[in-house]
Amino acid sequence: MTEPDFRLRCTRLAEARVAIAGLGLMGGSLAAALKRRSACARVIGIARREETAAHALALGYVDEATTDLASGVTGADVVVLAMPVRAILSALPALAPHLGPGSLLIDLGSTKANVAEAMAALPAHVHVCPAHPMCGKEVAGLQAADPDLYAGRAFVVSPLERTRPEALALCEELVRAVGARPLRLGPARHDQLVAVTSHLPYLLALALVMVAGDAASEDPLVWGLAASGFRDTSRLAASDVTMMLDVLMTNPTAIAGAVARCREQLERLEKLLQAGDEARLKSLMEAVANRRRALTFAGPLPAATDLNGAVP
Amino acid sequence: MTEPDFRLRCTRLAEARVAIAGLGLMGGSLAAALKRRSACARVIGIARREETAAHALALGYVDEATTDLASGVTGADVVVLAMPVRAILSALPALAPHLGPGSLLIDLGSTKANVAEAMAALPAHVHVCPAHPMCGKEVAGLQAADPDLYAGRAFVVSPLERTRPEALALCEELVRAVGARPLRLGPARHDQLVAVTSHLPYLLALALVMVAGDAASEDPLVWGLAASGFRDTSRLAASDVTMMLDVLMTNPTAIAGAVARCREQLERLEKLLQAGDEARLKSLMEAVANRRRALTFAGPLPAATDLNGAVP
Repeated sequence: MTEPDFRLRCTRLAEARVAIAGLGLMGGSLAAALKRRSACARVIGIARREETAAHALALGYVDEATTDLASGVTGADVVVLAMPVRAILSALPALAPHLGPGSLLIDLGSTKANVAEAMAALPAHVHVCPAHPMCGKEVAGLQAADPDLYAGRAFVVSPLERTRPEALALCEELVRAVGARPLRLGPARHDQLVAVTSHLPYLLALALVMVAGDAASEDPLVWGLAASGFRDTSRLAASDVTMMLDVLMTNPTAIAGAVARCREQLERLEKLLQAGDEARLKSLMEAVANRRRALTFAGPLPAATDLNGAVP
Repeated sequence: MTEPDFRLRCTRLAEARVAIAGLGLMGGSLAAALKRRSACARVIGIARREETAAHALALGYVDEATTDLASGVTGADVVVLAMPVRAILSALPALAPHLGPGSLLIDLGSTKANVAEAMAALPAHVHVCPAHPMCGKEVAGLQAADPDLYAGRAFVVSPLERTRPEALALCEELVRAVGARPLRLGPARHDQLVAVTSHLPYLLALALVMVAGDAASEDPLVWGLAASGFRDTSRLAASDVTMMLDVLMTNPTAIAGAVARCREQLERLEKLLQAGDEARLKSLMEAVANRRRALTFAGPLPAATDLNGAVP
């Protein structure tokens, strides 16, 4: 265990300069939420493209904006990486020399094991806390940003062994500041769970559109009959490809396992259908319907402190 | 081909007494839409339970309400069966003697081949036009009824060989009166298409909740991480079990075929994942995302007349 050599340079969010690298849906929404709630001293936005930087500034989502990662993070107390997972992984080596002693580095990547491993190797003078908010939209980019995106949502924080309590506290203060609920969870467990709750739904949406596309090549009226059920079940198929490809490439084993288990359940349903086994179909459908109806999504989660046992 | 011996007793919806048997989500919404738009002379609601009949009356969704099917349809110009498919099939024999000469019988059943076959066998003095609106909710019952449920939606009408043009015209007038767009489609083709657009999404939602349920038995935090993506992809799993069981039991071959094709697509995705075949995954994801983004759902369908070739 590497103990950081430096104290956190700023322990209170209200006094912190927060740099957000990546002004897409997640980073733009985070900036907008922090600004709207005046949660920190200053928000510095870092975008790849000039237009995005200018747009974020014009929208009032940031106090200043740049396209230069090094200068953007220089002097920041908190740096948030709001980029696809593999963009985070490749940005870290170039970023490290520019992170000031005692600064806190957070990421919002969709998978956590790779990021946690890479962050563990950063110089000891940087405080790190990988994280992942449980929200999103199937539309990407700053245009889709929304200061309320995080409101009421679970926001996973995956402190490493080297993460000091005060760094975790500052990260969770930021989470709460944008209206979300911190949920402490180790990277491996996170990646196993989201394979089922996020990545499998994406692949099911993909497969549904693929089946409909094949059917449409025989009868184009398929698209004319697709209604709200198809719309919702396939919504995730429109997700940002860069982001989702990074998810698939950084969590393949857990995702393939979830897909395999889903194929087994579908095969089970198919056999019951073919056998006309009404009694078994009915009891299965009732059990699943009751389970689904009991889910509230917006409902209360165990308090973060109750879940400390969940780390790592 | 059996030619009906009787003229339609009422050719204009504005003058018609419309009896709706079944005051759940679909029937209740239809009644409410007709009443709100003053589209017909009188709406008679027929419910299984006294409370439902009283409730529909209190809500102003019907002009009169009864729990007696025979007396409810007596004197009606148009009878709409808004019940699960197998409830429609078993109601038809008892109902037939009470349908007046020249009355029009419509149903809203989710599958059409069985209903079309049963309606074809009804006495020739009854006009028939099977139908199926492309809308719904995962919540059932009159409480969920909504006069806007049909607005802008496609509404399949499946005229039989015996269906006279004036009967079809009256059925389509009713469809338009509740804000929907008539889409003429033969029963077999309808059942093939909705197996992909409605029934497969239901089974995918079911399988997703089953996989999550199994995962939750090892790690209950699954439900705490389920967010909007899981919510939307699994929404249909909460659908009314009676309605969906009738769907599965009356369209098993087409549905099992759709499930089998979906399992193949999932296996394909699983293999690409395991092989780490980024290039193929990416091009597949991009093609599907573009296809999904191009779907408007609320967009214009071909005019009903353009689709006459689709019948049967």
